[in-house]
Amino acid sequence: MKKLMLATLPLAAASLAFAAATAEVPYPTNYRSWTHVKSMVIEPGHALHSSFGGIHHLYANEKAMQGYRGGKFPDGAVIVFDLLKAPDQDHAITEGARKVVGVMHRDAKKFAATGGWGFEGFAGDSQAQRAVGANAATACFACHTSQRNREFVFSSYRP
Amino acid sequence: MKKLMLATLPLAAASLAFAAATAEVPYPTNYRSWTHVKSMVIEPGHALHSSFGGIHHLYANEKAMQGYRGGKFPDGAVIVFDLLKAPDQDHAITEGARKVVGVMHRDAKKFAATGGWGFEGFAGDSQAQRAVGANAATACFACHTSQRNREFVFSSYRP
Repeated sequence: MKKLMLATLPLAAASLAFAAATAEVPYPTNYRSWTHVKSMVIEPGHALHSSFGGIHHLYANEKAMQGYRGGKFPDGAVIVFDLLKAPDQDHAITEGARKVVGVMHRDAKKFAATGGWGFEGFAGDSQAQRAVGANAATACFACHTSQRNREFVFSSYRP
Repeated sequence: MKKLMLATLPLAAASLAFAAATAEVPYPTNYRSWTHVKSMVIEPGHALHSSFGGIHHLYANEKAMQGYRGGKFPDGAVIVFDLLKAPDQDHAITEGARKVVGVMHRDAKKFAATGGWGFEGFAGDSQAQRAVGANAATACFACHTSQRNREFVFSSYRP
């Protein structure tokens, strides 16, 4: 039925519909057991505080670890940016509620328009509420273009 | 030859020599690929700053994850306390040089005197320079006794 309907659309529109339907970044199930790459705390006053304030941890699946080690991220590589509130109290910064689970998902063809990476953010602890959606080019990739020589990845693995 | 010499020693001394030779906590090889449990930043002014100032990450091997999940840490469970300097600059706290790799290694018999856990600290990036050695009871276990009802473990897994 769907196929029949698409066949009646102009080709360009059909391609667009297909791209939109397939270019969704999946939730990174089980990322908390992946390798911890590095962490950082972004404090009030930092230029990125409104978006990234708090403590964040980067996690990499095995294919992403190949990229961190060798510089080439194969299709299927996934990097998670796990951002939590970071209450600072009694001279200690602890981990608070989750703000967003940011994801970079490598698929050179599917995400060709954004450097071969799909970008998404899952709000709080939701696996369905998408904070980026169709805005990846402006909301994520615009900054990541500065890392063109590093396959658009900012982070390095901390041994 | 060694056996022959031991046989000439009084039994108690021989037992002591045996205990000292076997109760060493091994370096937790490959812990950076284990599960990341949680993190914290301890700042100047905190009561534990002189010992634990900086950013620390806890890592657990699979047996230790059984303990975090179910409350019972089996022999072979290892928890790593990875402490790094945490320079605070331009409204961001980043990860600096490693200060110490703290280890809790579960072996109920071998480490019966300290709650079934062997405690050790490896200085900086060294896998051989031991910061705790024979002082585990006073340097580590004295504080951990407060967690007697949690098998002497302070941390909880952050989902």
